Amino acid sequence: MDKKTVAIVGASGYSGEELVRLLLSHPFVQLSAVTSRQYAGQTLAQIFPKFAHVPGARSLRFSEPNPESLARQAQVVFLALPHGVAAEFAIPLLQAGCQVIDLSADFRVKSAAVYQDFYAHEHPAPELLETAVYGLPEVYRAKIRNAMLVASPGCYPTSILVPLIPLLKAGLIKPDGIIADSLSGVSGAGRKAELDYLFVECNESVRPYGIPKHRHLSEIEQELSAAAGVPVTIQFTPHLIPVNRGILSTLYTAPSQPLRGDAQALSAFSAKVEQCYRAAYADEPFVRLLEGKALPDTKNVVGTNVVEFAWRLDPRTGRLIVMSAEDNLVKGASGQAVQSMNIMCGFPETTGLM
Amino acid sequence: MDKKTVAIVGASGYSGEELVRLLLSHPFVQLSAVTSRQYAGQTLAQIFPKFAHVPGARSLRFSEPNPESLARQAQVVFLALPHGVAAEFAIPLLQAGCQVIDLSADFRVKSAAVYQDFYAHEHPAPELLETAVYGLPEVYRAKIRNAMLVASPGCYPTSILVPLIPLLKAGLIKPDGIIADSLSGVSGAGRKAELDYLFVECNESVRPYGIPKHRHLSEIEQELSAAAGVPVTIQFTPHLIPVNRGILSTLYTAPSQPLRGDAQALSAFSAKVEQCYRAAYADEPFVRLLEGKALPDTKNVVGTNVVEFAWRLDPRTGRLIVMSAEDNLVKGASGQAVQSMNIMCGFPETTGLM
Amino acid sequence: MDKKTVAIVGASGYSGEELVRLLLSHPFVQLSAVTSRQYAGQTLAQIFPKFAHVPGARSLRFSEPNPESLARQAQVVFLALPHGVAAEFAIPLLQAGCQVIDLSADFRVKSAAVYQDFYAHEHPAPELLETAVYGLPEVYRAKIRNAMLVASPGCYPTSILVPLIPLLKAGLIKPDGIIADSLSGVSGAGRKAELDYLFVECNESVRPYGIPKHRHLSEIEQELSAAAGVPVTIQFTPHLIPVNRGILSTLYTAPSQPLRGDAQALSAFSAKVEQCYRAAYADEPFVRLLEGKALPDTKNVVGTNVVEFAWRLDPRTGRLIVMSAEDNLVKGASGQAVQSMNIMCGFPETTGLM
Amino acid sequence: MDKKTVAIVGASGYSGEELVRLLLSHPFVQLSAVTSRQYAGQTLAQIFPKFAHVPGARSLRFSEPNPESLARQAQVVFLALPHGVAAEFAIPLLQAGCQVIDLSADFRVKSAAVYQDFYAHEHPAPELLETAVYGLPEVYRAKIRNAMLVASPGCYPTSILVPLIPLLKAGLIKPDGIIADSLSGVSGAGRKAELDYLFVECNESVRPYGIPKHRHLSEIEQELSAAAGVPVTIQFTPHLIPVNRGILSTLYTAPSQPLRGDAQALSAFSAKVEQCYRAAYADEPFVRLLEGKALPDTKNVVGTNVVEFAWRLDPRTGRLIVMSAEDNLVKGASGQAVQSMNIMCGFPETTGLM
Repeated sequence: MDKKTVAIVGASGYSGEELVRLLLSHPFVQLSAVTSRQYAGQTLAQIFPKFAHVPGARSLRFSEPNPESLARQAQVVFLALPHGVAAEFAIPLLQAGCQVIDLSADFRVKSAAVYQDFYAHEHPAPELLETAVYGLPEVYRAKIRNAMLVASPGCYPTSILVPLIPLLKAGLIKPDGIIADSLSGVSGAGRKAELDYLFVECNESVRPYGIPKHRHLSEIEQELSAAAGVPVTIQFTPHLIPVNRGILSTLYTAPSQPLRGDAQALSAFSAKVEQCYRAAYADEPFVRLLEGKALPDTKNVVGTNVVEFAWRLDPRTGRLIVMSAEDNLVKGASGQAVQSMNIMCGFPETTGLM
Repeated sequence: MDKKTVAIVGASGYSGEELVRLLLSHPFVQLSAVTSRQYAGQTLAQIFPKFAHVPGARSLRFSEPNPESLARQAQVVFLALPHGVAAEFAIPLLQAGCQVIDLSADFRVKSAAVYQDFYAHEHPAPELLETAVYGLPEVYRAKIRNAMLVASPGCYPTSILVPLIPLLKAGLIKPDGIIADSLSGVSGAGRKAELDYLFVECNESVRPYGIPKHRHLSEIEQELSAAAGVPVTIQFTPHLIPVNRGILSTLYTAPSQPLRGDAQALSAFSAKVEQCYRAAYADEPFVRLLEGKALPDTKNVVGTNVVEFAWRLDPRTGRLIVMSAEDNLVKGASGQAVQSMNIMCGFPETTGLM
Repeated sequence: MDKKTVAIVGASGYSGEELVRLLLSHPFVQLSAVTSRQYAGQTLAQIFPKFAHVPGARSLRFSEPNPESLARQAQVVFLALPHGVAAEFAIPLLQAGCQVIDLSADFRVKSAAVYQDFYAHEHPAPELLETAVYGLPEVYRAKIRNAMLVASPGCYPTSILVPLIPLLKAGLIKPDGIIADSLSGVSGAGRKAELDYLFVECNESVRPYGIPKHRHLSEIEQELSAAAGVPVTIQFTPHLIPVNRGILSTLYTAPSQPLRGDAQALSAFSAKVEQCYRAAYADEPFVRLLEGKALPDTKNVVGTNVVEFAWRLDPRTGRLIVMSAEDNLVKGASGQAVQSMNIMCGFPETTGLM
Repeated sequence: MDKKTVAIVGASGYSGEELVRLLLSHPFVQLSAVTSRQYAGQTLAQIFPKFAHVPGARSLRFSEPNPESLARQAQVVFLALPHGVAAEFAIPLLQAGCQVIDLSADFRVKSAAVYQDFYAHEHPAPELLETAVYGLPEVYRAKIRNAMLVASPGCYPTSILVPLIPLLKAGLIKPDGIIADSLSGVSGAGRKAELDYLFVECNESVRPYGIPKHRHLSEIEQELSAAAGVPVTIQFTPHLIPVNRGILSTLYTAPSQPLRGDAQALSAFSAKVEQCYRAAYADEPFVRLLEGKALPDTKNVVGTNVVEFAWRLDPRTGRLIVMSAEDNLVKGASGQAVQSMNIMCGFPETTGLM
């Protein structure tokens, strides 16, 4: 089999770097171009010494991002760019016949109006919104297979959607009143030289931010609404914690029927939840439903493309609490994008991700 | 003024160590005894090198814990012992006329039945429950002034009760459906040689635990119920995060009246919340209501006796979210205990704590 | 090609866990047994949830360590046991025809007397010392190829020997007066429930330990002496730093000839050092000689089997300083052991390690 | 006693912030002005929420730095500015009669030529070099008492000079061949928005930097030379480690006489070292000579003005190794500056520092 040629636009940020890691060791692709305005002319090995021992990293040089030359160099292009900018590259690359996997928010939301509401500028390419596929393989695998443009989900959304969508589809929880309390490692803020993300400002610190209207709400609510069949509005509180990688989300939901104090109803509902999750995820290679007393821990997923979760039904309150963990740069960004690429290219879905 | 003599029973744990720090530099007391089975015979300076330059630490030696000799050595005794054990010391010390400040859970809950439900053993001294005062000065200052036995609050409860009690007393939020999502530094687990708290197991990790029935719920719900005037049951999810010290609590509440989408009602409610908090805390030296865009951050309270908090009203959901931060070993334990001591002894309340 | 069967004895510590990670994904071996007294009967997935998504981890169960059954189950056996205990397993396994790779210190030192001096007990199997091969592939590749018993080097030694051996062999530095100042992550202390290694005791802390006669000196000096052709005694100071993984060693050496203040001699000597290192390591897949202004950083080697290093000649003092970084659990332990296995089994040396 | 008025120029960096902390709670001074170009007009409480509960912090506002108004507002002025800039403020403030304590490097080195060699620009006020006093109270207490301009030592130098000066003065170690291997927390790099100091770049990382000619060598060698009575050149290697605060220095020295293998000589030399250190530091409130098996640990000095150290004589090599720990922002910067102020103003030396 001939290797597919792939390119990364914006390869110097944390998501870009993680794409480099995954694609350099992927057996079915050849990383043919990486772009970075800042580092143009330098080799991957010079900018990311950690890859210097990997064959290929010593010869591949960052180039200026240029859609035309990218289209000549690569069959598949990953965009690891800020929102707004990503669309500018997607348009010409798609026209040139490339498959595009966008890690920005530009094509995740189906409505240009919602995009403008949350991202505070007009959508740069509304005509592409219809064809873009939301790149959550566990939900949209079939569509991804034939997509030319995949909008890879945000880090927080993945940790929230994977545990909630099956429950909403099955009508087991109320679509109203959901709360998502999420904790993210600092790499989620990107490789930006800002005082807020200095070591001394983040270490020995934990803090909420972006309250109450974080941008990721737009795609979270879109996908939850699709699963529920009715409009869903949730409460979402992100926090910054002093780890490099990892997101932990604690999700508070209300079962569709009242359970508090009714032992039999609690037990029957528990069985339904377990069955619902097994039906949804037993065969998914990257979703891990924890068993027994195990609770999620970011250290068990960091560096992998796995999202793991556990649930507890609280007999005192009647609430169903679901807790999930993922690596924000892998299942929450670059790993999931490679998973989509595997599907789009007809490779076994776990290739390069186990 | 003659200095009061004070003793710490169980001074080798993290709370005990923090009491040592605060009491060694307190101008109106003399630390006359510290006990530790493990370290009996050694000086404070030997076990805690960090205090070795403080006058007094080189001469004071740990002794075996013995109520009779403690009663001779100290007018005020702090108990930093496991629950169950604390009561055994409280009884003889009170009989000998000492003022006792207990940092364990033994006297926090008024009902021996609730204690047994949450702590899984019979209450060791139910006859003392009536006279014990819950040592949250912002609520029980007057009672603390005349108390012989103060039950100093737990770390999580302090971070939850301070922001919620004024709202419940004023009837601004519904007593039902409250969620407290809390994040704690590892010192909260105590100085225990267990695999779960090794550096490598906690660093680069974040995880929930104690779901869904953590012991602190017993005192939290008791105090929230007292404030609301009706029984309150809450959802409480503690998480372990990789910092030494600090608790951050994110509290989800429902305003008593529906507000979603009603700009005028939202604005009027906001004014009431602000007014309620100012009335409650404007003059409190250790409660900081954040202003403007500021959100709580544990790094701003670590090492201090301050609990800081901010609130946001979400117009999309109509919910009131309150976020608080404290040092779990200071306002969440030893600092608050010293604050109670100051009140009990007639010292200015902030002595040794600013 | 039939897969080799491999076993890990003592698989529940950090080195054992890292062996599990590497061997589960190694294409030419089948992990057929893992032992742990503590976890016997439980699956790998239960004890190490992070491997639960890897095929094989859900079915493989820890067993009691038993040499006879191990010899039936595995062709190659890794010993991740405390010193003293490892030898007890090595003897019967070798007799049964297994290839043994020992990660303990039991077979690293050639002299039973030196072993006793540093490890404070008699050597448990002195008759095996002659046949054991020190498992540093960059030095002993040919011997490893035919070895039945490989003593895999310690974590500190690897970071010190790789940069120093070529210089000593070439006579470029004096064998006398070498200083090795090393910094290690906390996983180097093993998975032991001791107060010293609690998160709160290690986080926001840095401290020297094991001064001045650390056990690793025995193998370091043995190998440096072999390279120099004369007995070498060095100064070695280990420190504990708050990272999970990684060792950084700063090595102070004196060039064989005086250079201070002599620009021409300095320049000529620099060229010799560069040439010496290139000759030694240009083709080594796991040794990275840094170029230009780059200095080693543990974050660039963590998770890899690479040891990277840089050197600087100080014109003010005439000293040659060499700085190296490695992952203490990979190149410093389990990765290097797998590298030896690859050589012993005739697999390409980098298999499963890139 | 009337309080002295004091000002801090450049109060928004980490040293400036630490000065704010110490001076706000100092009983004999009134913090009358803090300057910051960036934050002019805002209160201390707004920029540093952690001080918001301290009386004074809510009213004191940052102002533009202006020597004339500073001279009217303050009797003592602390300069927490970059080198080069500090001198520009020192000149007019001294002329106006203020006592000046400079935390930059501008007045530490006595020779303008050495300054230019290490700082790469001409000295901005060479005429002041003679009158400036190097603010290491343990060495220059008498001179500090009468100084108008104190050059407060750098963080690394303090950790190196305190342990070495008594040994050199007593002739116990050779002035030649000293090596200082130092580890610093990230606050040492200042509050600068640079990629190198982002959380993700520093966490789980340790790396050397500034090899081999760090600027602090200029003052270290000046003071060691003064102590030894002959020119001293040392090897100095700083490393960055993932802690907020703290410096650990490991110092390698050679006793003046050969000791290796001579038990009697080793024992006699040990006694001399102990006696030398006790004579020098037994009465120093901020120097802690560790006893018994204790080794320095940054966590025992962080937040205090103490530098602690221990020494070991290695019988195998005959070397004397001294290890020290301090808080780089307290004894290594702002605490030491306040200590000098106490001396200059006739306050008890430990005021506000215990």
